[in-house]
Amino acid sequence: MAEKWVLPFSAGTKDKELLGGKGANLAEMTAMGLPVPGGFTITTAACKEYFAAGDSLSHQLKEEINRAVAQLEQRSGKVFGGESDPLLVSVRSGAPVSMPGMMDTVLNLGLNDWTVEGLAAKTGDRRFALDCYRRFIQMFGDVVMQVPHHDFEAILSAVKSKAGVKEDTQLDEEMLGQLVEKYKQLIYRATRASFPQQPLDQLYAAVMAVFSSWNNNRAQVYRKINKIPDHYGTAVNVQQMVFGNAGDNSGTGVLFTRDPSTGENKLYGEFLINAQGEDVVAGTRTPRPISEISSLLPEAWQQLIDVCKLLEQHYGDMQDIEFTVEHGKLFMLQTRWGKRTARAAVKIAVDMVNEGLLSKEQALGRVDAHQLANLLHRQVSPEAVVDVLAKGLPASPGAACGVIVFDSDEAERLADSGQKVILVRPETTPDDIHGIVAAQGILTSRGGMTSHAAVVARGMGKPCVCGCEGLQIDLPGKKAIAGGRELKAGDLLSLDGGTGRVIWGQVPLVEPEISPEFSLLLSWADEFRKLGVRANADNPADARKAREFGAQGIGLCRTEHMFMDGNRLPVVQRMILADNTADRQQALDQLMPIQLQDFYEIFQAMDGLPVTIRLLDPPLHEFLPSAEKLAVDVALMESANQTGQGLAEKKALLRQVRNLEEANPMLGNRGCRLGLIHPEIYKMQAEAILRASARLQADGGNVKAEIMIPLVSHHNELQRLRHQVEIIQKQVEEETGQKLDILIGTMIELPRACVTAHEIAAHADFFSFGTNDLTQTTFGFSRDDAEGKVLPAYIADKILDENPFAVLDREGVGRLMDTAVTLGRQEKAGLKLGICGEHGGDPNSIEFCHMLGMDYVSCSPYRVPVARLAAAQAALTR
Amino acid sequence: MAEKWVLPFSAGTKDKELLGGKGANLAEMTAMGLPVPGGFTITTAACKEYFAAGDSLSHQLKEEINRAVAQLEQRSGKVFGGESDPLLVSVRSGAPVSMPGMMDTVLNLGLNDWTVEGLAAKTGDRRFALDCYRRFIQMFGDVVMQVPHHDFEAILSAVKSKAGVKEDTQLDEEMLGQLVEKYKQLIYRATRASFPQQPLDQLYAAVMAVFSSWNNNRAQVYRKINKIPDHYGTAVNVQQMVFGNAGDNSGTGVLFTRDPSTGENKLYGEFLINAQGEDVVAGTRTPRPISEISSLLPEAWQQLIDVCKLLEQHYGDMQDIEFTVEHGKLFMLQTRWGKRTARAAVKIAVDMVNEGLLSKEQALGRVDAHQLANLLHRQVSPEAVVDVLAKGLPASPGAACGVIVFDSDEAERLADSGQKVILVRPETTPDDIHGIVAAQGILTSRGGMTSHAAVVARGMGKPCVCGCEGLQIDLPGKKAIAGGRELKAGDLLSLDGGTGRVIWGQVPLVEPEISPEFSLLLSWADEFRKLGVRANADNPADARKAREFGAQGIGLCRTEHMFMDGNRLPVVQRMILADNTADRQQALDQLMPIQLQDFYEIFQAMDGLPVTIRLLDPPLHEFLPSAEKLAVDVALMESANQTGQGLAEKKALLRQVRNLEEANPMLGNRGCRLGLIHPEIYKMQAEAILRASARLQADGGNVKAEIMIPLVSHHNELQRLRHQVEIIQKQVEEETGQKLDILIGTMIELPRACVTAHEIAAHADFFSFGTNDLTQTTFGFSRDDAEGKVLPAYIADKILDENPFAVLDREGVGRLMDTAVTLGRQEKAGLKLGICGEHGGDPNSIEFCHMLGMDYVSCSPYRVPVARLAAAQAALTR
Repeated sequence: MAEKWVLPFSAGTKDKELLGGKGANLAEMTAMGLPVPGGFTITTAACKEYFAAGDSLSHQLKEEINRAVAQLEQRSGKVFGGESDPLLVSVRSGAPVSMPGMMDTVLNLGLNDWTVEGLAAKTGDRRFALDCYRRFIQMFGDVVMQVPHHDFEAILSAVKSKAGVKEDTQLDEEMLGQLVEKYKQLIYRATRASFPQQPLDQLYAAVMAVFSSWNNNRAQVYRKINKIPDHYGTAVNVQQMVFGNAGDNSGTGVLFTRDPSTGENKLYGEFLINAQGEDVVAGTRTPRPISEISSLLPEAWQQLIDVCKLLEQHYGDMQDIEFTVEHGKLFMLQTRWGKRTARAAVKIAVDMVNEGLLSKEQALGRVDAHQLANLLHRQVSPEAVVDVLAKGLPASPGAACGVIVFDSDEAERLADSGQKVILVRPETTPDDIHGIVAAQGILTSRGGMTSHAAVVARGMGKPCVCGCEGLQIDLPGKKAIAGGRELKAGDLLSLDGGTGRVIWGQVPLVEPEISPEFSLLLSWADEFRKLGVRANADNPADARKAREFGAQGIGLCRTEHMFMDGNRLPVVQRMILADNTADRQQALDQLMPIQLQDFYEIFQAMDGLPVTIRLLDPPLHEFLPSAEKLAVDVALMESANQTGQGLAEKKALLRQVRNLEEANPMLGNRGCRLGLIHPEIYKMQAEAILRASARLQADGGNVKAEIMIPLVSHHNELQRLRHQVEIIQKQVEEETGQKLDILIGTMIELPRACVTAHEIAAHADFFSFGTNDLTQTTFGFSRDDAEGKVLPAYIADKILDENPFAVLDREGVGRLMDTAVTLGRQEKAGLKLGICGEHGGDPNSIEFCHMLGMDYVSCSPYRVPVARLAAAQAALTR
Repeated sequence: MAEKWVLPFSAGTKDKELLGGKGANLAEMTAMGLPVPGGFTITTAACKEYFAAGDSLSHQLKEEINRAVAQLEQRSGKVFGGESDPLLVSVRSGAPVSMPGMMDTVLNLGLNDWTVEGLAAKTGDRRFALDCYRRFIQMFGDVVMQVPHHDFEAILSAVKSKAGVKEDTQLDEEMLGQLVEKYKQLIYRATRASFPQQPLDQLYAAVMAVFSSWNNNRAQVYRKINKIPDHYGTAVNVQQMVFGNAGDNSGTGVLFTRDPSTGENKLYGEFLINAQGEDVVAGTRTPRPISEISSLLPEAWQQLIDVCKLLEQHYGDMQDIEFTVEHGKLFMLQTRWGKRTARAAVKIAVDMVNEGLLSKEQALGRVDAHQLANLLHRQVSPEAVVDVLAKGLPASPGAACGVIVFDSDEAERLADSGQKVILVRPETTPDDIHGIVAAQGILTSRGGMTSHAAVVARGMGKPCVCGCEGLQIDLPGKKAIAGGRELKAGDLLSLDGGTGRVIWGQVPLVEPEISPEFSLLLSWADEFRKLGVRANADNPADARKAREFGAQGIGLCRTEHMFMDGNRLPVVQRMILADNTADRQQALDQLMPIQLQDFYEIFQAMDGLPVTIRLLDPPLHEFLPSAEKLAVDVALMESANQTGQGLAEKKALLRQVRNLEEANPMLGNRGCRLGLIHPEIYKMQAEAILRASARLQADGGNVKAEIMIPLVSHHNELQRLRHQVEIIQKQVEEETGQKLDILIGTMIELPRACVTAHEIAAHADFFSFGTNDLTQTTFGFSRDDAEGKVLPAYIADKILDENPFAVLDREGVGRLMDTAVTLGRQEKAGLKLGICGEHGGDPNSIEFCHMLGMDYVSCSPYRVPVARLAAAQAALTR
């Protein structure tokens, strides 16, 4: 036998993969000398053997179980199936990863028609013994023999009503005896098999039931959703029974060693006197707050406090505990890592450092960076009763309430008049930018986690629920249907962007707060991390917000968002549509001072910190109305025999739009291509950046501008554009007398840039990985399209583990990045390397950036704290 | 002095980069002992020194020139500037790469007011001496002193008309003396400088003029267009004059050692008795066919024949020669590689092997693979006088005539009635496929070398001119304007797809022929090449054509073209639009037997050879009408208050089309994604392939089917789809009792596939590089969009050297391919590797495929011979 199939808790092994989580913790507590009832674990190796043997227990495995039972008999002085002092056990599943949906627990196993009398004799309490027996038969019948639970409950109700009692505790010996008989009959009727009287048969059956439940439907679905490998298998823990239902000096309970919602350092939980575990779960009796044990069972209370302290010291973390008190003596049945809110996680980690339980390094590892984002946004009050109409994608965290509007202009109008609005659209486009700005939150029925609405909302730190398929929008009718209810413009609606919930009416919200513990934790993170953290910000307000959250600069300032602004768009459109250089230059001359002011204010907000500005990136047609809409207008005007100026203008515009139209705009005339084919646009932008720098410098500011050329695929592109910027720099320096210290670099966002990074590096002061676009071209996935259909299907079918736009694909995209880093640094050792794709805010991706040896990550302002923590975690573990 | 600045022809150096082409050949001929007048070359190193010295001749360089002149004096027994027997020289430019646009030739340099008398005395012919002098002053004044050519001509005309003579040869001594004086005065008037009388001054000035002409505008433009590096510089050849104008036993001529248009082995050229080189160029006298020398100057003729034979033996190739006969003695002035037609190139190469001049290996290197394509298509007769209306891109070679149609349905109708038609469209879409099939040739005003029209036409071997911007099409008016003329539907038009010419009316065409020499040359190519050559073919006719041209299998059979066929499209559309599985399956059931028949016939045509079939690749909306058109229709119907069935259907269709619409279809739901999300489509196709294989096998055929899964980015995609095919294979094998030997592989056309090729190889029997798509994603260029605007601008600005869709980008795309080959073979040593992008027909790209160690290339049937030759050339040189 190569693998260990059965191991006593005291065997000294603590291998979680072999023993399962529960078994490993029981072994661990046993080793610590805590009061754990004796027992053994039938390992995951045995489970695999069970499946390999065609879902059956081999002779050999049975023998090992028998041997372990014999050992337990010896240790306890009781006999399994013994008529005088019978050994009873609990049987519980325990997979390496906590997993609901599987067969859970059978208590009191070992009872039968004769051992029940032995238990009665030994305890001197026949009613107690019968109560245990009827509980056992019901649990065994339900979970092992699969007789419907409610059939047992129906019998119980009938017996109680016939006896005229309400509570189970009021049942007397005779009634319990009747129940036992009726239950056994029920099982026979339902399964054509008798309730097994041999304790070993009971045990084998229970073990097989646990193993088999690994492959039941709910468990499979759970593993699929939570990406738990199918091959893990589950272990089974067999443990000597202790009895919380042995009288009023007995009881059972669950607790967290600290408050899991606030993190406060006090025991938090509940218990029942004279009860077994399933009574707590069943909810038939109301449990008491844990603190009341102190008066009811003071001795056990002291033991509990001591044990909790020991456990926290041992695990260095808050524990989630199950225990039983039998005749005043404490027994530990389970301990595990306790789930907590983000707020609690932060407080507990910081407190434990102060208490000397953890080092700072350890504390940083105790907080889930993902979860942190929730702390930075308004939340739906946890106490609120909410009426959820539909669920969409949790596209941007935070909660919001407001009146429904279906139109961005209307959103702006109402917001200007002081109303809070929720913008509801099938999807948003750059034309909706003012509506998004005006709204409290955004809800769309189409689009994925990186749709326009999602990206813009995340950037602004605004709640957004996307791709809500349960929502049917009727734009002309200004209404929508969700959850069977009609939502009209003006109705109140709430959104929870952290969970994707769309909630009817107005719900109470709680404000975010950056607690002192949170600040402290982040300051520790800053001590350890190697990666710089910058923010993506396109305007002074976002820049200030980013700085507040600890950003060490701006890693991506997108100039196109500036172009979208209401007043500017017409000038931008004039610039695009100009059919001669003079007209185009006139429009650009109008834009220059506006851009200059934009940059001046951003530099001011980031005084002393680097600001990377990306020159215009999107294709020009994004700033124009759609061809389809224009074509329809023209057709309608013509069919109505309209003529004259209006029609001619529309037709001219349509021609222009068509001329700029592209089959695949993502791969079209954008980025540096635009800058090379229409040099006057980049020239204007470069001049605005350089003049703003010179002006702020003259005003005493400290400017660190970095000009970023997007979408470079060939080093010649960068060489030309760099040269162009340098000429303007010289001019501005001469004119203003200011010496400017400007970096010029590029986005690395195309596979060709990665594999020719050495050539590109020769002309670049820095690389910033644009991993959104790089993911698109590496996979050949258009984000807009793939997130709607292909990716959800792929992830559901496990073709891909993750959405590569959310979590960086290390095998593919990452390999190209690795090539680029290696080649780039080979050419230029001091090349500055960063990432400004959305992955810059994802902890897993941040870890990868750390491993690649990058200098910084850049993410939306609201994810800066997340990135600071994730970067520290990466530095501490990689 | 590190570099050699001046070298006599006899110095033994033949370095073309140093001496220029002309200088190297003169040195070579001198070394062979041929009658070459003495002289020396001022090298490209001297040219670089000249530019480095600020466009001036250094003292040192002048001294070297003086030394060389002195040597030449010694060798010839004449004196430069001597009064009795003056040395005269020609000065000619000669760059390493032949380059028109630069200063070309000055003859008779060394003449002045006193040496002219010395020449007169020495030759006893003062008229001849004066004739040389006036020629020299004109040439020197024109090309060195930049006095306009026509000012000299005006004086010449005035003198002739005053003298009452018509021909230059009729001018007597006195008139020539007048001309000399008038020319000198003209030069002084125009330049305020005297015509230089010192021969050395003349020589320095001429040398400087040659060097400077390297940077004149025409030369720069020529270098830009022909991608000749600016740093090469030019050499200058100074050579003792011999005189073709020394009387009736003298003359000058040019010839090819074989017929450059047919390749026939006879001298081909022309000459003038009693003339200097520029008389031939000026065209004032009509030259005589070269063969006439045999009777006029029989001695020189024999010398010429001997020299030509020697030169061909020496160079192993047809030569283009300039010569002069002075008093019956032959002098060689130049020899170089002779330009020739494709037909001549093939014949000459094969003949030279038969004549023992070349080995087969050498002969294969003598034919330009690019040029070969012309031999496989109809051509505009070289004798035809053509009226070119406009020029577009030469998108698919061959010539065609027919009546103009602006509509594909009309094209089909007319073609069915027996007319030959030319389809003229702004651009074509898959909806035009029947029009393209019906047409003799296709002309579009938009779209690049890889637009739909271009790709489809090349595949069909049909002439196509694309992106003809000089053509304005008025579709509703059924007319177009080009070259200022109106073209109406029904007018006759001719296209030359090899040059891009659009020609008015009907021009005579010549049929292609595969000459015996051509076949022989290709059979030699097959002996040496390592790469297999397959063809891309989508139907039995193309497959047969491919086999005829020597294809060793089909490397890409695109199934989508089968779906586009007129009768099938409605069924395909029904399949796509089905809103339930039953309807979809019904449509698929209808398609299955049709596809089965398609494949059966293709397998039959390729019996015994491998056939790679790609499962459906394009996004489904390509098979549906455009959303814009439908939206306009709906709007118009609604505005006309139409209701009922028609409108409802249109609206439903519009909804469906919108549902399938994608922002970037190239990166959307296509390829294997389609196969995974709608498994029934690939299942139908796989079944059709497998059943067709089984049926043909049962009928005694030898089938080698290879099923190719497109657009794989992650190995899981291939694993799933491979499994699906294997299940069907098992079923078909069981049902039919035929054991099928099927390969299952994938396109490698995404960067991610390249960098994870080891993972993908585990599930693939073969890789076929789809370099069109791989180029798109590696560069982030949408072919459809970039070829319209970005690429032309990039190539014009030298940002890119080549269109990467035409010539494989070795640095970027090639590096990814290299990675894929390495990783793929690492995982699976026997992995079959091929290429099926359009690069498979491009000689440069084929060379790269050879270097990567691929197994085969696949290209359009009409390029198979090109590929066979290119593959042999690659094998012989790499």
